[in-house]
Amino acid sequence: MRAWSTELREHAGRDVALAGWLHHWRRLGHIGFLILRDGRGLAQVVVEDPVLCARIDALQRESVLRVRGDVHLSAQAPGGVELRAPIIDVLVAPRETPPVDLSRPRLAATPALALDHAPVALRHPRQRAPFEIASASMAGFRAALRARGFVEIQTPKIVGTATESGASVFAVDYFGRPAYLAQSPQLYKQILVGVFERVFEVGPVFRAEPHDTPRHLNEYVSLDAEIGFIEDHTTVMAVLTEVLHGMVAAVAAEAPDAMARFGRRLPEVPVSIPVIHFTRALELVAADGAEDCSEALDLTPRHERRLGEWAQEVCGSDFLFITGFPMAKRPFYTHPDPERPAYSNSFDLLFRGTELVTGGQRLHLYDDYLSALDRRNLSPAPLAGYLEAFRHGMPPHGGFAIGLERWVAGLVGAGNLREVTLFPRDQQRVMP
Amino acid sequence: MRAWSTELREHAGRDVALAGWLHHWRRLGHIGFLILRDGRGLAQVVVEDPVLCARIDALQRESVLRVRGDVHLSAQAPGGVELRAPIIDVLVAPRETPPVDLSRPRLAATPALALDHAPVALRHPRQRAPFEIASASMAGFRAALRARGFVEIQTPKIVGTATESGASVFAVDYFGRPAYLAQSPQLYKQILVGVFERVFEVGPVFRAEPHDTPRHLNEYVSLDAEIGFIEDHTTVMAVLTEVLHGMVAAVAAEAPDAMARFGRRLPEVPVSIPVIHFTRALELVAADGAEDCSEALDLTPRHERRLGEWAQEVCGSDFLFITGFPMAKRPFYTHPDPERPAYSNSFDLLFRGTELVTGGQRLHLYDDYLSALDRRNLSPAPLAGYLEAFRHGMPPHGGFAIGLERWVAGLVGAGNLREVTLFPRDQQRVMP
Repeated sequence: MRAWSTELREHAGRDVALAGWLHHWRRLGHIGFLILRDGRGLAQVVVEDPVLCARIDALQRESVLRVRGDVHLSAQAPGGVELRAPIIDVLVAPRETPPVDLSRPRLAATPALALDHAPVALRHPRQRAPFEIASASMAGFRAALRARGFVEIQTPKIVGTATESGASVFAVDYFGRPAYLAQSPQLYKQILVGVFERVFEVGPVFRAEPHDTPRHLNEYVSLDAEIGFIEDHTTVMAVLTEVLHGMVAAVAAEAPDAMARFGRRLPEVPVSIPVIHFTRALELVAADGAEDCSEALDLTPRHERRLGEWAQEVCGSDFLFITGFPMAKRPFYTHPDPERPAYSNSFDLLFRGTELVTGGQRLHLYDDYLSALDRRNLSPAPLAGYLEAFRHGMPPHGGFAIGLERWVAGLVGAGNLREVTLFPRDQQRVMP
Repeated sequence: MRAWSTELREHAGRDVALAGWLHHWRRLGHIGFLILRDGRGLAQVVVEDPVLCARIDALQRESVLRVRGDVHLSAQAPGGVELRAPIIDVLVAPRETPPVDLSRPRLAATPALALDHAPVALRHPRQRAPFEIASASMAGFRAALRARGFVEIQTPKIVGTATESGASVFAVDYFGRPAYLAQSPQLYKQILVGVFERVFEVGPVFRAEPHDTPRHLNEYVSLDAEIGFIEDHTTVMAVLTEVLHGMVAAVAAEAPDAMARFGRRLPEVPVSIPVIHFTRALELVAADGAEDCSEALDLTPRHERRLGEWAQEVCGSDFLFITGFPMAKRPFYTHPDPERPAYSNSFDLLFRGTELVTGGQRLHLYDDYLSALDRRNLSPAPLAGYLEAFRHGMPPHGGFAIGLERWVAGLVGAGNLREVTLFPRDQQRVMP
């Protein structure tokens, strides 16, 4: 029976079989230290047999091995445990050294080189750690929502209309007729509030924007939820707060080793995340500089960083809700603030000074949709299916979308989303 | 505090608030019976107040209501419970009747009409039930794999090469350069075996095949898993069997009401699903007819139906593994059977006479990939990233892909995948 490297201590005093890759090999006189990497961690194997040492000398890094040996607790060993008196089977012997050195604490490669050789570079324990965190985060997201009666949906990514928002879309040749890649599941998740009331989806979204920044990619993973029978956007913010709680708890429980590689604390999600209105946010960012932003309709990345610092200093919070963004900059389905109709019942959630979530209350009355489209000079015809849901009774509803990669980047302190995306897609890169 | 229709019995004797849609309204002399539909089920509301009855007479179906009243157990009521002495708030009043009648036990609409009006037709309790089953199935799939140490991955859907298999791909205009929609996460999940050993993904796949059959769609949801350090394809089949167990258990636990609408029993997954070799499968299908299939390289849908009947009759099983498909008809990454190299270490799993899963052992040696590509006249260049993983040590591995819609169709007895797809995509349909 095979053991995982991370569970070796539990087998102390016994004979176990490990399997994995030759991560590192070092001779100290007559003794050799082999570091074996498996899907979860690293294990030290001590080799004293000179014949075996000579055999291992001849192996390439990343050789695939099965190693049987005795588990010994040892204060000097990394993790306090090691395998001794090993029997080693070479399952696969590569003939070349890897294109990047995987054995240092940090990958010694430029970001571009790491991406070019992602199939190998991702094997580095620190390179793969963000994806263990992503896996735990997705599980936490779903568990929190399922516990609250949400139904998981899978909506189409090939769509017939490109009119959800101003963002650019990728065109697909769909049997000779035009179609597009969905920018988000927004329209479908709203339709399905009419069916299930509470829905969520985890899936890819596609943005053809010619951005070339560390904070944007052309394909990313969106964690979407939508909820019916809300009071207003504050109901959505309360659900989102609970979901973030679940995500942090899942990372803490399932990916503590991965988090430890980045030396950053997990955020605490306050029971009540601080909230400020957009107009107040502008005052705060204006107060500390000469910039006049009294006419601003949106926040810049610099504003977001400043507000993140403010939340940290004044509220001791990694998170900050900004509500009431001007209607002029939000998509057509946004619900206005009934008291101040130039502002919206929408929100952004900043996490450590970066926009992580966008959400809010949506319009739910058919006539309001017709007016909203008319005001923006958008034709209702391509949205006929979507509008049909509203013609036949939709409750007050709202929802949110969390960018998975931005979440993980905030947790691990990555400055570029490419570090937390397995195979990123940008203008330069569509392979591997 | 709002209650769900399905939990009404638990509130007997109390005053509760429900919310939902006016599903049906019927007057019997001075009394009216309002059926309220919420995201989970139906509740009967008894109205005796003549003024309120007159108000409800004037409401359209699908009006969005909040209903407060007293919960009474009643032998005559559907489900044995009803709400009496209601106070009704109309949250949203639609002005038109729905395009399809939602109140009959079965939707009275042609399949095409139901699809054209999916945003409303999906509200019908029997139309939405397959998606409650799908939601539970996905949860069961993930839970089974996570319990076995699998990491969830999200791989790109926009890909630079179209060479995975002979199947047709959709082309995307990617900033002026050619790109394609991924036919499956196959190449990525294999690469990631080199990183995490065990991975899974739930996501959309895209096939540009001009099929127009009840068993094919151009976009569907694939439940993918891939496992390192296997013995051969039988290790994969054992994991798949456990995963199917988890999926059936999740449907039984979470979607019993949805299943009950179809009057079909849940399948039992045998601890050991019956297995026959491809050559034996051909003998079985040849035995009962004049058809000569001694030269056949694949199974037809008719063969699959016949083999499904055989598994039922002879083994009492809804499931049947067919192993050893001829190499000639399997993709280039397929591992041959070392004993009979014209046949492969691959399998299909039939569920009630339809192919539900394809899987098998993959090649893991770099040189074997070069030979396999060469034999098929495929160039290695577009696969450079994928092949790099094999140049640097990949363990014996394999995996499988379950078609989510086929699974649900088999559970509910749907003859057409369009009945179990929220917004199906075929040559005719890219909206809504």
